[in-house]
Amino acid sequence: MLLKARFLKIEAEKPIVILNRDDAEDLGIRALERVELRFRGKKAIAITNLAEKIIRKGEIGLYMEITKHLDVIPGDKISVTIANSPKSLEFIRKKLNGQTLQRNEIRSIIEDTINHNLSDIELTAFVTSLYTYGMSMEEIAALSISMAETGKILKLKKKPVYDKHSIGGCPGDKTSILAVPIVAAAGLTIPKTSSRAITSPAGTADRFECLAPVNLDLEEVERVVEKTNACLVWGGSVDLAPADDIFIKIEYPLSIDPFLLPSVMSKKKAVNAKYVVIDMPTGRETKVRTAEEFEILANKFIQLGRKLGMRVECVSTFAEQPIGFAVGPALEAREALQTLKSGRGPSDLVDKATTLAGVLLEFAGAKNGKKAALDILKSGKAYKKLKEIIEAQGGNPDIRNDDILVGRKIAEVKSNRSGHVLWISNKAVDIIAREAGAPKDKGAGVYFKKKLGDKVKKGETLFVIYAEKYSKFKNAVNLANKIDVMGIGQKMRMKLEEFPGRKDEEERYFILER
Amino acid sequence: MLLKARFLKIEAEKPIVILNRDDAEDLGIRALERVELRFRGKKAIAITNLAEKIIRKGEIGLYMEITKHLDVIPGDKISVTIANSPKSLEFIRKKLNGQTLQRNEIRSIIEDTINHNLSDIELTAFVTSLYTYGMSMEEIAALSISMAETGKILKLKKKPVYDKHSIGGCPGDKTSILAVPIVAAAGLTIPKTSSRAITSPAGTADRFECLAPVNLDLEEVERVVEKTNACLVWGGSVDLAPADDIFIKIEYPLSIDPFLLPSVMSKKKAVNAKYVVIDMPTGRETKVRTAEEFEILANKFIQLGRKLGMRVECVSTFAEQPIGFAVGPALEAREALQTLKSGRGPSDLVDKATTLAGVLLEFAGAKNGKKAALDILKSGKAYKKLKEIIEAQGGNPDIRNDDILVGRKIAEVKSNRSGHVLWISNKAVDIIAREAGAPKDKGAGVYFKKKLGDKVKKGETLFVIYAEKYSKFKNAVNLANKIDVMGIGQKMRMKLEEFPGRKDEEERYFILER
Repeated sequence: MLLKARFLKIEAEKPIVILNRDDAEDLGIRALERVELRFRGKKAIAITNLAEKIIRKGEIGLYMEITKHLDVIPGDKISVTIANSPKSLEFIRKKLNGQTLQRNEIRSIIEDTINHNLSDIELTAFVTSLYTYGMSMEEIAALSISMAETGKILKLKKKPVYDKHSIGGCPGDKTSILAVPIVAAAGLTIPKTSSRAITSPAGTADRFECLAPVNLDLEEVERVVEKTNACLVWGGSVDLAPADDIFIKIEYPLSIDPFLLPSVMSKKKAVNAKYVVIDMPTGRETKVRTAEEFEILANKFIQLGRKLGMRVECVSTFAEQPIGFAVGPALEAREALQTLKSGRGPSDLVDKATTLAGVLLEFAGAKNGKKAALDILKSGKAYKKLKEIIEAQGGNPDIRNDDILVGRKIAEVKSNRSGHVLWISNKAVDIIAREAGAPKDKGAGVYFKKKLGDKVKKGETLFVIYAEKYSKFKNAVNLANKIDVMGIGQKMRMKLEEFPGRKDEEERYFILER
Repeated sequence: MLLKARFLKIEAEKPIVILNRDDAEDLGIRALERVELRFRGKKAIAITNLAEKIIRKGEIGLYMEITKHLDVIPGDKISVTIANSPKSLEFIRKKLNGQTLQRNEIRSIIEDTINHNLSDIELTAFVTSLYTYGMSMEEIAALSISMAETGKILKLKKKPVYDKHSIGGCPGDKTSILAVPIVAAAGLTIPKTSSRAITSPAGTADRFECLAPVNLDLEEVERVVEKTNACLVWGGSVDLAPADDIFIKIEYPLSIDPFLLPSVMSKKKAVNAKYVVIDMPTGRETKVRTAEEFEILANKFIQLGRKLGMRVECVSTFAEQPIGFAVGPALEAREALQTLKSGRGPSDLVDKATTLAGVLLEFAGAKNGKKAALDILKSGKAYKKLKEIIEAQGGNPDIRNDDILVGRKIAEVKSNRSGHVLWISNKAVDIIAREAGAPKDKGAGVYFKKKLGDKVKKGETLFVIYAEKYSKFKNAVNLANKIDVMGIGQKMRMKLEEFPGRKDEEERYFILER
């Protein structure tokens, strides 16, 4: 069928065309089936949408990407025929029917995913069936490898490659900004790619962006790492394992994350990591809630690492409260910078950073990795390394805390009783910091004056809200007065009524971070 | 945030808006999350898509439906705030996690489905989780009731209401066109709504449309049934259980059909049926392949019927070949008309129609329902009733076979060996008839000269292909020469090699018919 090209000035990630319903019936095509388009020797496969009015009989509506690909102008006659579904759809159906997928089948699905050949319905069926049926370790390994190999691969001269990852879930976790310079200062290669926040107020890429540019491409990353042993960049611009971002778009609205293991490990594979430490924040409102859950997940990471030729060690870290005092990109960047500069800082932050860095130093032969890491931090070598990294990435190595702007709308939230801090809700912290504008408004966030176990007097400040914009500031303050962020009470009391407002937990708090 | 309305001249079923990525980040909104729009007292909830270029910062792209709903003109400033996900999404997640849904939760999902409040990703998660986890009988009943009650309800004075349904899968199945007039001629009320073809060459609505208009609305249907005891209309225009059509759009690309039971029974509920006969074509290439599968499914229909206050009887019918000789809307309409007019026709068609009509007559008290049905057919009363129905629906009651146009491109496919017809592939028949243009080209299809067990001489015609358009005709003929439609061989031979070309059955043939 020859149809007249009509341009729709709309961006679409996928190759989509719109046909008049009548023409589609004539072609024997239903909505979301594929058509093959041909124009002067050029070909494209597109997913069909249908319209009754906008596209008249004899016309075909083309999204911008396809008009470029086929090199057509409006009015050109395009040949349209029915096309087969991609082969990978058969494999998705196979998984949907509970069967195990072979390596080549998974590869085919991932290739069609990154080439945008699968509709949202088909991708969702894949993601939900991985979620409901689970995956064998072979399937997870095949996914990790396919996701890595369909993206860019970082090739470094200085081997072996070390890496550090947190599965997320704890606010204020600026550990990487300390750990990476420590490890690099010890002479190890650690090309750290980080994510931006998805459900949290700040990802490490958001935080480090307050210190230096993080949107580096692969060649720039290679240059930075060859020069400094390390980098702290946004994974998104390096284009490692790009399928992950597509799956996140499906996972997020459904609050499911079957891709946790392949997502993390495909990115380690893509930088050719050999030694990996994985931080698993453990606590009621994180992904891993108990020691048992930690052991199960850690074992999977270690097994998967073996299949991918990596040595993996997992660390369960205390996550019942934010790390350090600051939550939000700029506030956290300040806290990390100050800690590196002075060699001292919040005890939990320093403890966590040196513990994780220490694991990597022990992989490289150190006897007491944690002590070695702490020495590097205190000696100022880590700060010196941070400055090198900042400079290599295009930032100002002499950046000072005052250069990092934080929100100027400030409210102190005070305690209405005396006692001790019995609990802090990470979920509440996340929500308030996001309401205040984080991560988009880098200066927005929450700064704690009290943490777990601290003594509090009635009227004392518990935490401070920072925002850049008045409307967001107002919303965040209102929210902070409505929900319970911290529980203040007597340590000895056993009455459970002392834990107010914690009734909305029937649904597990969903964290989607990479 | 106030954003300037920009019109996108695109139809969308769902309320969708497009935001600039930067504004979305400012609002804290990710793709597919919801926004609330307000303009001069009017409100709407919409699903967010993101754009980088097409929609500039400060603008909001509106699909046609929303511009009407909010009554805006381009350039109007619309207030945009983040909105919560619909409550039903929580219930979808619940099912996705393997939990059983309550009646009110199912109702909430179905309401949001027909109000287009759920994205394709969310709908797919619902459909796939129903498929992978299955449903309890309580869930199926709740789905059936919710799907019925969220659509229109047919209220007839003449009670009780009888109904007949086929779960489909057998080409050429024009049984309803015979059975409905027979039952109505016996004085019973049978408001038959039928579907159009989804994966087959013809649905009953497509067939009957060659005899009379079938796009009647609810009021017209009520008028026709009050007058004639019956109707034969397209279910789509009556708007019974409209959620089904939305689910079909998800099921079709995935080749799954978890909605079979609630889909059928919600429509029976919506016409207030009291006595229902369900035909289950049974054979290798249908939905029900064995006597055992029949019993399992039949039991479910009967149980579900009880929950919905209906008496259901299921009949397993032979489905290893097309019913009658004609496949395709016009060819089948001719065959049905001729059979009613003369009181005789293809033995399998007459046998099937009188058997199914007989079940309903026995519900009404007949001793030998099948004989009673055959008497009505032979007496000409059924034909008289057909004419009444045709006239009441706005057709010509004196329509003759010559008035029903069939395709003028005709090719006979001949046997290349002598023997008996050992098998006929329904799947091959479907594919060829659709390639020839059915159901869109009503005159396209296949007409059989030989059926199972018939003796065939080399060079004799097996079947005839009809098409309206030359290109489709050519494709259908090419296809008929490539794939095996019928197996001709010696009855006594036991060698399995006599069944050629049946190797492509690793995947079960997917039939999605209502």
